[in-house]
Amino acid sequence: MIDTVICGIRFSDLIIQMEEFHGYRSPGILVGGLMLDVAQEEMKPTPYLNAVTETVVCLPDAVQLLTPCTIGNGFLQIMDWGKFALTLYDRTTLSGVRTWLNADVLARFSLIRQWFERKTPAEAKPPFEKLAAEILEARGDLIRHRPVRLHRALKDSQHVTTIRCPECGEFYPKRLGPVCPACKGDAYFTYYPV
Amino acid sequence: MIDTVICGIRFSDLIIQMEEFHGYRSPGILVGGLMLDVAQEEMKPTPYLNAVTETVVCLPDAVQLLTPCTIGNGFLQIMDWGKFALTLYDRTTLSGVRTWLNADVLARFSLIRQWFERKTPAEAKPPFEKLAAEILEARGDLIRHRPVRLHRALKDSQHVTTIRCPECGEFYPKRLGPVCPACKGDAYFTYYPV
Repeated sequence: MIDTVICGIRFSDLIIQMEEFHGYRSPGILVGGLMLDVAQEEMKPTPYLNAVTETVVCLPDAVQLLTPCTIGNGFLQIMDWGKFALTLYDRTTLSGVRTWLNADVLARFSLIRQWFERKTPAEAKPPFEKLAAEILEARGDLIRHRPVRLHRALKDSQHVTTIRCPECGEFYPKRLGPVCPACKGDAYFTYYPV
Repeated sequence: MIDTVICGIRFSDLIIQMEEFHGYRSPGILVGGLMLDVAQEEMKPTPYLNAVTETVVCLPDAVQLLTPCTIGNGFLQIMDWGKFALTLYDRTTLSGVRTWLNADVLARFSLIRQWFERKTPAEAKPPFEKLAAEILEARGDLIRHRPVRLHRALKDSQHVTTIRCPECGEFYPKRLGPVCPACKGDAYFTYYPV
């Protein structure tokens, strides 16, 4: 197990990297790493790699750890669909590979099923080492993939015109209206009185 | 400049880390690091740190590099508001600090203004070293902060009930309707014919 290489990184090193970045040993990042491996094998190598994850949970961190794509550099987009799937694509050709977890095989892998179906948060989590071993054993059956073509590049490359908000004085995109989202009433915070 | 410490990391090391993670030397991550420094100084230390960025550009990567909060572990939330601002808060008390870029001082710092106002993508970018030096010089005036209280914890901690999509067979959250978002017609991709 310790010698398995995922996206060019030894399993043991990947575990350390996910603990440092994600905070703990994550089965989701391990499966994500295997998905990325499959997608990259099936694609032509490209310097114009983009990624899409179809969930906010775990998979974005797998992409950010194991590819050059991050949220902040704009090459990773996240769909909040709650689906354990991701796509790598070339932003110049819009061709790529989508990978997802094959639910048909879960009946044969009880620890993966226990982790993936996690019916209640209180339910016991399988021990990481045993679950990781089962994931590595199952990888050939667990991960499906298919070539895809994107409808459009998902990175917003258009220039954004910004203006100062007349209420708070901060800059925001003009297209969002006459005041910024926070001053319009969407703020997630309240200032404490000065 | 090389000896400045930002969020516990030497400036020269931060540059290497941002190149590795973000792909290039990013003025936005540098300013983000200074904002995080200010926010953490103003907050009580907490093991329950959460973060919110008010833009998808650069700042999420500053948070992910310099705090334990990532998108994939759920402790970073991103508002697509196009505002160069971020908040750190304690998810148990909902108290924290919001920091933002003080547009009032831009007239005094021409390179920062050139970078921040970036009127056209084609416009020349200031050389990184000179811009970074100006950012470090301006830091005390450039970054404002104020204590805030969040309206609610932004991490979705409720258990999500998932079901299998009758069309594609993949699992998705039941609350999203009778078929998954992709099969409903929101897919960003088309499969190539088999």
